[in-house]
Amino acid sequence: MGAITRQPMRDLPCWLGHARVAHEPARGGEPHNCVKINGSSATSVISRQTPLAAVTATLPLNPKVVVTDDEIPVVCWEDVRQNIPTEKQLMDQHRQGMMIEGGVAYRQTVVVRSYEVGPDKAATLESILNLLQETSLNHVWMSGLLGNGFGATHGMVKHDLIWVVSRMHEQVENYPIWGEVMEIDTFVGASGKNGMRRDWMIRSHATGQVLARATSTWVMMDQKTRRLSKMPCEARAEISPWFIEKRAIQEDSEKVAKLGSSATYAKSNLRPKRCDLDINHHVNNAKYAIPDHVLEDSQLCSIILEYRKECSSTDVVQSLCEPDDVGILEAGTKLNGSSMGSDVSLLGHQDSVRFTHLLQVEGDGKDEEILRGHTTWKKRPPSM
Amino acid sequence: MGAITRQPMRDLPCWLGHARVAHEPARGGEPHNCVKINGSSATSVISRQTPLAAVTATLPLNPKVVVTDDEIPVVCWEDVRQNIPTEKQLMDQHRQGMMIEGGVAYRQTVVVRSYEVGPDKAATLESILNLLQETSLNHVWMSGLLGNGFGATHGMVKHDLIWVVSRMHEQVENYPIWGEVMEIDTFVGASGKNGMRRDWMIRSHATGQVLARATSTWVMMDQKTRRLSKMPCEARAEISPWFIEKRAIQEDSEKVAKLGSSATYAKSNLRPKRCDLDINHHVNNAKYAIPDHVLEDSQLCSIILEYRKECSSTDVVQSLCEPDDVGILEAGTKLNGSSMGSDVSLLGHQDSVRFTHLLQVEGDGKDEEILRGHTTWKKRPPSM
Repeated sequence: MGAITRQPMRDLPCWLGHARVAHEPARGGEPHNCVKINGSSATSVISRQTPLAAVTATLPLNPKVVVTDDEIPVVCWEDVRQNIPTEKQLMDQHRQGMMIEGGVAYRQTVVVRSYEVGPDKAATLESILNLLQETSLNHVWMSGLLGNGFGATHGMVKHDLIWVVSRMHEQVENYPIWGEVMEIDTFVGASGKNGMRRDWMIRSHATGQVLARATSTWVMMDQKTRRLSKMPCEARAEISPWFIEKRAIQEDSEKVAKLGSSATYAKSNLRPKRCDLDINHHVNNAKYAIPDHVLEDSQLCSIILEYRKECSSTDVVQSLCEPDDVGILEAGTKLNGSSMGSDVSLLGHQDSVRFTHLLQVEGDGKDEEILRGHTTWKKRPPSM
Repeated sequence: MGAITRQPMRDLPCWLGHARVAHEPARGGEPHNCVKINGSSATSVISRQTPLAAVTATLPLNPKVVVTDDEIPVVCWEDVRQNIPTEKQLMDQHRQGMMIEGGVAYRQTVVVRSYEVGPDKAATLESILNLLQETSLNHVWMSGLLGNGFGATHGMVKHDLIWVVSRMHEQVENYPIWGEVMEIDTFVGASGKNGMRRDWMIRSHATGQVLARATSTWVMMDQKTRRLSKMPCEARAEISPWFIEKRAIQEDSEKVAKLGSSATYAKSNLRPKRCDLDINHHVNNAKYAIPDHVLEDSQLCSIILEYRKECSSTDVVQSLCEPDDVGILEAGTKLNGSSMGSDVSLLGHQDSVRFTHLLQVEGDGKDEEILRGHTTWKKRPPSM
């Protein structure tokens, strides 16, 4: 069911990295932002005289009540405000979410917000990737399996495991526009013995048209050693009942070639900046090595990312980019076996162009691969 | 009712700037992304043989049907997908929005998304400002007054006017956390003869607690001459029925002093970068001149911004910052007359610190003020 992991690389799409959130008692045995019942803590609207019964009666769900060392019951306001379900939910009114496909896949209705679009009124790729993250986390959230942190199940938390993404493939057939109501479906399946596949389909609510598809592969990593881990039986038992065979992208076997350092476009000496520390900004950074004229005239219609290693915030990174030999493709051409869906034939006489990418840590002796990528761009429609 | 305007300055909060979106027919008289009924355009799922009656029968609302020069009726798919109301709506299921206060104020229920929070699980200021933008635009959206562009009414569009913000004051009493359900209320009032005030209140759905309050002042600008404009009668007639007296921040008269160039902290030679062109990243940039230790240990609890002039993307900008003479304030102290709401007294023995800010265009002869600011910071709560 996993979704998100710690992936400190600053040039990756935002949904691939997020500092995990521990939710532990503060020093002194009293959880932060909790309210002592009949106690002296004053971080809540509930007065210190309020008896526990009166408190719990006003709560939307049963909050966690912790008994501290000095035997004072404490209501965790974080829990009340977050309200993470401990049992599977079929509907969530506030998230506009529901379980589908017999209760194992998740659908969320989402409106494209004003700040998620570019000057052309179309959602940015960054916004779309953010929504993939959001819906996958909400899938886990509603499953009742969400432990501490971002997407790890209870069983994973117990073994100190987090999810890391190893591959991501997204195809945008038609960018959603400002105010458009989308239906985002997400579902998971097995990937080898120890991995998980997570797919997404985005449809326009008004037209029923598929706007975007994505598939991704995830494995588990030991949070302390940073080594990949087998899937423990406990986690498999939680996750595998959610696996289905359905796929968002039917043909998805393309491997990305490794670029040499003689690539046509290169940006070296890239360092994470303070503003990069907000994990929402990574996709823009990933564009560093794309030629300007492509960014200005085209929009991305397919991206494949293969992750090789974690990147720390102190790494110095080089971004390489090479146009594919095929150069300009006629629209409608099948792109190296990756199906673009039927709508690619609607490009008419517009051209596509493809690039191979490599991000690597610049080392003294040898460079280390962080990420290989493949992108396909098509001409931007005329300004609306 | 206005919300958003073109404000190309790259160091401003994102919700203050967005390229306007024109929605005009493409060259040749045929609107882009529209479908010729019985015609030859192939950008839609509807086949060219589908008769108009069959098309309109499947549409969620009546789409705009444009008759082109050669008298072929055309369905605008942009309109179908956006579906902007032409009459006042009291509820919007997809936006989780409804009109309140007798039908003139707007309330939207919003869940804090996973990518809107920082490592401390709290929503970033940037996310909150984005949601203020979003709810104000949805207020206009549901009013039936939304013309082309971002927040301008039909009457404003007719006179080629856009909204520009002249002042913004936000107070965050308690940052919303990941997964928290918020209720965001927004409403408008008169501000002088030609201006409009727009306020917001953000509450926690689970606890009822006020999390944040904001107020802002807006005036109209001629889009071509870039000069401020009187409010035309036509626009006043549209907007003034929505004005109410209610205020989110009761005491809001503070003026920000102008900093001299001898300010303690300064960053010069700031230039808009490609990644700044995504208008969502401005708040981070605005932090450039804040001392690192403040950014690391504290969170912003109040910000006042006074806008002086537009800034173009070619301007070179200097950011100045000076700690206030009062230095460290005891919590609970009234901050220069700006009420922090009752919850400030809950800070206990934590300290606050204030800064005055100035952004200016670096000119050959004299510098030109873009923005004055005042920020108040309090110690970040212990990591959760």
